[in-house]
Amino acid sequence: MAKEIKAELVTMCMVYDGDRVLVQDRVDPGWPGITFPGGHVEPGEAFTEAAVREVYEETGLNIVRPKLCGVKERLDRDGSRYIVFLYKCGEFSGELRSCDEGENRWVERTELKNMKLADTMYELLPLFLEDGYSEFFLRRWEDGEVQELRLL
Amino acid sequence: MAKEIKAELVTMCMVYDGDRVLVQDRVDPGWPGITFPGGHVEPGEAFTEAAVREVYEETGLNIVRPKLCGVKERLDRDGSRYIVFLYKCGEFSGELRSCDEGENRWVERTELKNMKLADTMYELLPLFLEDGYSEFFLRRWEDGEVQELRLL
Repeated sequence: MAKEIKAELVTMCMVYDGDRVLVQDRVDPGWPGITFPGGHVEPGEAFTEAAVREVYEETGLNIVRPKLCGVKERLDRDGSRYIVFLYKCGEFSGELRSCDEGENRWVERTELKNMKLADTMYELLPLFLEDGYSEFFLRRWEDGEVQELRLL
Repeated sequence: MAKEIKAELVTMCMVYDGDRVLVQDRVDPGWPGITFPGGHVEPGEAFTEAAVREVYEETGLNIVRPKLCGVKERLDRDGSRYIVFLYKCGEFSGELRSCDEGENRWVERTELKNMKLADTMYELLPLFLEDGYSEFFLRRWEDGEVQELRLL
């Protein structure tokens, strides 16, 4: 159908415990720095299930009822979209561990902005920390310059 | 890339004014009944922009800062997904009119559940009316039976 496009579907989740949030210090040279756990949605999987699975695989924590708090999208030159479903969750069990992606640790929410964040994470934070936003829209050609970056 | 899938991207928005909500009584035989305005995301368009444009085109109202309140997805047999970004908005200007899709009118929020809703709209309402949900997940093969329907 003409209205179909190509898309990659991903999740990211900010787990919080009172004033602390769980960050991942990614070592991947393709996207290094502080971010939140997440990853690709598997075939047949619901987005919310993917968020729960990825947090468990990457941190050892079992999150309960994560809440969708926004969406990030990167529009590519060919019209395809990389879509990240953003969640937050304050209810979980289990014991924190790190993973191959990088070290996981708790930090104060107020510290976040001053950390060595992964590319575009600084601009993405209001979707997790404030109530007035729904979408982070990025137009960027592959690894090139950002053509357009907007919060809506 | 292997992680790319085929997707159709759509928006739907519940416009409200105090206790009243704006409904559309769709005449399309493919999906008749009471629903909220919305439609496909255009190439290059942000989801939130698409929600604003569709509400304007279908109702004459200019909505301001619609808020993402969930996502509906229908998973098809071939792995492709029909993804509906769900918004709500209580701030708008303009004068209500109807459109080719159907008559638009204000109804009491409490009346909604008893109306002649379009298929699966009854199950979708909690995403607009309650706070605890993020996703409506539907597995259905084309116009066939629902294989799976879950709120997450």
